[in-house]
Amino acid sequence: MSAPTADRIQVMASTAPSWLEASEGEEENIVLSTRLRLARNLTGHPFPQNADSGEQQTVYEHLTSSLVRSGLFAEEALFPLLELDQGVGRLLVERHLISGALARKEGPRGVFADRGERFSVMLNEEDHLRLQFVTGGLASTAAWEELSGADEELGEEVRWAWRSDYGYLTACPTNVGTGLRVSVMMHLPALVLLDEADATLRAATQAGMLVRGVYGEGSSVHGNIYQLANQMTLGRSEEDILESVVRVARQVAEHEERARLTLRREAPLHLEDKVHRALGILRTARLLGPRECLNLLSAVRLGVNMYVLSDVEINTLNELMVLTRPSHLDRREGREMDATEQDVLRAEVIRGRLRPRGGTDTNE
Amino acid sequence: MSAPTADRIQVMASTAPSWLEASEGEEENIVLSTRLRLARNLTGHPFPQNADSGEQQTVYEHLTSSLVRSGLFAEEALFPLLELDQGVGRLLVERHLISGALARKEGPRGVFADRGERFSVMLNEEDHLRLQFVTGGLASTAAWEELSGADEELGEEVRWAWRSDYGYLTACPTNVGTGLRVSVMMHLPALVLLDEADATLRAATQAGMLVRGVYGEGSSVHGNIYQLANQMTLGRSEEDILESVVRVARQVAEHEERARLTLRREAPLHLEDKVHRALGILRTARLLGPRECLNLLSAVRLGVNMYVLSDVEINTLNELMVLTRPSHLDRREGREMDATEQDVLRAEVIRGRLRPRGGTDTNE
Repeated sequence: MSAPTADRIQVMASTAPSWLEASEGEEENIVLSTRLRLARNLTGHPFPQNADSGEQQTVYEHLTSSLVRSGLFAEEALFPLLELDQGVGRLLVERHLISGALARKEGPRGVFADRGERFSVMLNEEDHLRLQFVTGGLASTAAWEELSGADEELGEEVRWAWRSDYGYLTACPTNVGTGLRVSVMMHLPALVLLDEADATLRAATQAGMLVRGVYGEGSSVHGNIYQLANQMTLGRSEEDILESVVRVARQVAEHEERARLTLRREAPLHLEDKVHRALGILRTARLLGPRECLNLLSAVRLGVNMYVLSDVEINTLNELMVLTRPSHLDRREGREMDATEQDVLRAEVIRGRLRPRGGTDTNE
Repeated sequence: MSAPTADRIQVMASTAPSWLEASEGEEENIVLSTRLRLARNLTGHPFPQNADSGEQQTVYEHLTSSLVRSGLFAEEALFPLLELDQGVGRLLVERHLISGALARKEGPRGVFADRGERFSVMLNEEDHLRLQFVTGGLASTAAWEELSGADEELGEEVRWAWRSDYGYLTACPTNVGTGLRVSVMMHLPALVLLDEADATLRAATQAGMLVRGVYGEGSSVHGNIYQLANQMTLGRSEEDILESVVRVARQVAEHEERARLTLRREAPLHLEDKVHRALGILRTARLLGPRECLNLLSAVRLGVNMYVLSDVEINTLNELMVLTRPSHLDRREGREMDATEQDVLRAEVIRGRLRPRGGTDTNE
């Protein structure tokens, strides 16, 4: 890989994407991020699943040069997956820059991402191109304007497959139309503790939302983090889609707020006990599995949100949720580790970042 | 109750018995204490279980005055259970000064105990009198000499039921003969972690030992603490009985030492993780149940013994094992609490005593 790409990947291992640190959006206690993505395909070229590797290469080169020419990305912003090892692919998945499917498939494919990782473009995943914009918190229409602006700039360079009766054509029918998917990542620990998450999310599903785990389709829920996204992209304007997802997400957030008040009122001791213990374990454990780690970070995050804990920053917790993922740890160490080695390093990274103010190690 | 007794009971609630703090005996990393007790009955009086309350009262008064006259105890050293509330009875059980059976039964009964609670005498339990001497660590013959000396002094005041063919007569045939039971309280966390405790203790049983939980007969094992005691008291000299119990206890202690080495060699990370987490939880929990508390103290004690943790004193841990028992907490608070209230106070007491050096509260 090129030296700038290698440097950037190394920095990623110990730095969270900037959108995780900013609390620019609404409801940032509960909403970690909103992602907006547009699915687009070049006209006159088969979708990636029907394309041979020559055709895939043509599309890849055409889009790469168009993206650079449009001024949206510098050439160095590209991560060409064919030239990078699988560990880098997994790292990019952990940062939500690419899907697991893109990491696992073969052929010419990749992702452009700006430095802050707000803006990114996947090439040759299910569609030829997927344009993504991420904000911390619950997105406003400003986020859509950013993404839409980029889409228009790019539209001057390429011709998209589009029909006046359907809208944008995509490999999977669920994306036909606007090609817009809005996903909101929500932290719902109080609903989970009160065993009300399923009912609340069932209501969201009935309101037309897809509900999934933190790594999208087929991924399980860890750390009480759920993704809400629109199911349909056809027959409605982009603004409508965004607005409807935001509305449902706001309702879910209200349920979570109410659940937090209930916890505070009805089980204050159990709440305090849970969050203090979680921080105590994070500050002292020598082995931390990925799932336990996320669950403990989730409890501490709840504790900070609810003013039970005061000497931890929410940003630190948000960052640690990404930086303690397996491929981030491998990259930090510079080699592929086994699960126990990762558990040791995960616990070290956590202890280093969650050290009490003015303290060294908690038990020493 | 009398004012001196009331004061003394109040002090007990926040002070461990002195034998727990001293590490006078051998193997004090593994052996918490050795208790030697002699069962004695007055000649010409029925055993308590066959005595009506008038006869029980006669025995009680006779022995009380004999004990004071012998100079073994001051009059204020008596806890007359008939005059004390049940909470005091449970407190004395938690300190191993009396048995659960003595606390629960009715009628004139009580216990004399010196200030350090090394030396005590139960009246009208199963036998008329039981004389007990406790040392920290594994007892030497010096302990037997102490107890034997007291027995002789008392023997000048009273006539014991004794036959030349059997020895001392007791209510239960298992105590006939010398009336001596030697009990060793052992902390065996490494054997439990390696799942070798049962096999080791089965071997001890085959060598003639009774193996029980921390509160004797019928009590379950908490905090990986086991009691080993001789089964028979007949047909052997007191010195032989003591020597045989000490020999088996030493063998069990060697197994525990070997198990600790195995842990250190084969699972050093899991060991460190376990003991650091245990201390982390003790220092941060807001609710601590009695069983979890003992198990966590047990893990921390192992950590200190094995030089994994350095800023906690073994004595503090030994004390906390007693001071966090339910009736100790009730007495400290001055009222009977429900289990949740006890869990809160238990966690407070633990946090107060296990505070990191120079630190305030761990998570604040």
